[in-house]
Amino acid sequence: MPSEFRTTRRVEFADTDMAGIAHFANFFRWMEEVEHEFFRSLGHSVHDGEAFGFVRAHASCDYARPARYEDVLDVRLLVEKKTAKALHYRFEFGAPAPAGRAKDSEAAPTLAVGRLEVVCVTRDAPGGPLRSTEIPAAIADQLQAAP
Amino acid sequence: MPSEFRTTRRVEFADTDMAGIAHFANFFRWMEEVEHEFFRSLGHSVHDGEAFGFVRAHASCDYARPARYEDVLDVRLLVEKKTAKALHYRFEFGAPAPAGRAKDSEAAPTLAVGRLEVVCVTRDAPGGPLRSTEIPAAIADQLQAAP
Amino acid sequence: MPSEFRTTRRVEFADTDMAGIAHFANFFRWMEEVEHEFFRSLGHSVHDGEAFGFVRAHASCDYARPARYEDVLDVRLLVEKKTAKALHYRFEFGAPAPAGRAKDSEAAPTLAVGRLEVVCVTRDAPGGPLRSTEIPAAIADQLQAAP
Amino acid sequence: MPSEFRTTRRVEFADTDMAGIAHFANFFRWMEEVEHEFFRSLGHSVHDGEAFGFVRAHASCDYARPARYEDVLDVRLLVEKKTAKALHYRFEFGAPAPAGRAKDSEAAPTLAVGRLEVVCVTRDAPGGPLRSTEIPAAIADQLQAAP
Repeated sequence: MPSEFRTTRRVEFADTDMAGIAHFANFFRWMEEVEHEFFRSLGHSVHDGEAFGFVRAHASCDYARPARYEDVLDVRLLVEKKTAKALHYRFEFGAPAPAGRAKDSEAAPTLAVGRLEVVCVTRDAPGGPLRSTEIPAAIADQLQAAP
Repeated sequence: MPSEFRTTRRVEFADTDMAGIAHFANFFRWMEEVEHEFFRSLGHSVHDGEAFGFVRAHASCDYARPARYEDVLDVRLLVEKKTAKALHYRFEFGAPAPAGRAKDSEAAPTLAVGRLEVVCVTRDAPGGPLRSTEIPAAIADQLQAAP
Repeated sequence: MPSEFRTTRRVEFADTDMAGIAHFANFFRWMEEVEHEFFRSLGHSVHDGEAFGFVRAHASCDYARPARYEDVLDVRLLVEKKTAKALHYRFEFGAPAPAGRAKDSEAAPTLAVGRLEVVCVTRDAPGGPLRSTEIPAAIADQLQAAP
Repeated sequence: MPSEFRTTRRVEFADTDMAGIAHFANFFRWMEEVEHEFFRSLGHSVHDGEAFGFVRAHASCDYARPARYEDVLDVRLLVEKKTAKALHYRFEFGAPAPAGRAKDSEAAPTLAVGRLEVVCVTRDAPGGPLRSTEIPAAIADQLQAAP
């Protein structure tokens, strides 16, 4: 059962700000994108119409070094905790290798470490309020917290 | 009947890019925000639950000069055309006065001119497909195309 | 010396997602906007060309209730800590009063509580690397941590 | 000499709005991302430090059908015009095949058609004003307008 997932994210021009680096809020967008890519890798979508979804209860990020335009960041998702209704993820953003050279992600320094705590929710009627619910077994059975 | 609306928009830090200017795509976000502020000024919301909304059929922008961090842009919305189901807007983004000096928006050079063509839509059921519909009379009666 | 600042932020249409609520990453954009509005209220800009700026070392947000389209959120910034080179802010996002009714922000439930820890940086040459530096006295002298 | 480039873009959750479809402004972000991916495919970066860049003079998009969460859009870039200082691009966003089925992009209906007109610019000094300049020959020689 997977508790980890790796992928990459490229820093696009629109992600930069006038300080010449990736704007800090983009890391939260990237975390969510990677979470959803992780779900697709398991054969699921993170939002199944009105049936269920995952709202964010907590999000945080610690920034060590800036990311720059066209950097291809190595991103590692780790399931840190799994409860009946919630998942806690940790995301490590690794610095890219210099452009044009082979990437050795093992040795890459960490740019940022983020966390998302998400809660499974459902609606009893279309457009109705969200309420927390158990993670569907088909999904929960495929996940486990990292040791 | 109003065919024009004026407001302002401030360029925020996250709106800038590594070229040190406001990223071009933000102008489209600002146009929509100003359209919605115009609707609120008439006592309406541009989205009334499932009842109706306005989808974008066309959007364009011509850029003459860059906008910069903390610039307060003067924005003028003009209803250029009104049909039973559609509205065509023109947006003029005026350059701000230099910081700390009095703003004389009449004399301000234009930074950009944008256009949105929007079509009124509704859904027959929650989550169902959008189909075009006539603009509700309560709204249409309050708008007219500029001469 | 101020240690607190209050303002509002409106949830725009582009801020919403298919769950019908404000996307969680927007709260980080709003925190930064409010920080900069706070600086302007003191007569400063948070970025003075190449001279100095504030990079984000940590950002977090705890979400209690969703924010919705056209909600006008009451936002309270609190300076929680001030050191020679860093500022720690706390942001409280208050729920808006129901549309059309008078807003009583004292009684408004909290939607979200966020934090930013920012470090003052400068460059020794244009385009050069950022290095941490002391907060300029003209700014530091105007701020104090909340009791 | 290439005058065309094809790639894909996935609609992420943060790209959607409360109408349940991709927010229209994202298409402008995607056009720019695809332009930059095109440049990388030629061995170039679209922004080479202070040396040169491309500002947007015009951007437009016509929307025929909505794009939805997790859709993988087929995007075709076409160089429509090349002058000494400017490039005009056309972008065709093709609808994705239904999830789980083979994609036949030839038959895919078009969701949207966009255009960007970009002008090559340089700065005479770091942080100085942008002025238009000829597209570097190393780049211009690799591009031609589509027949």
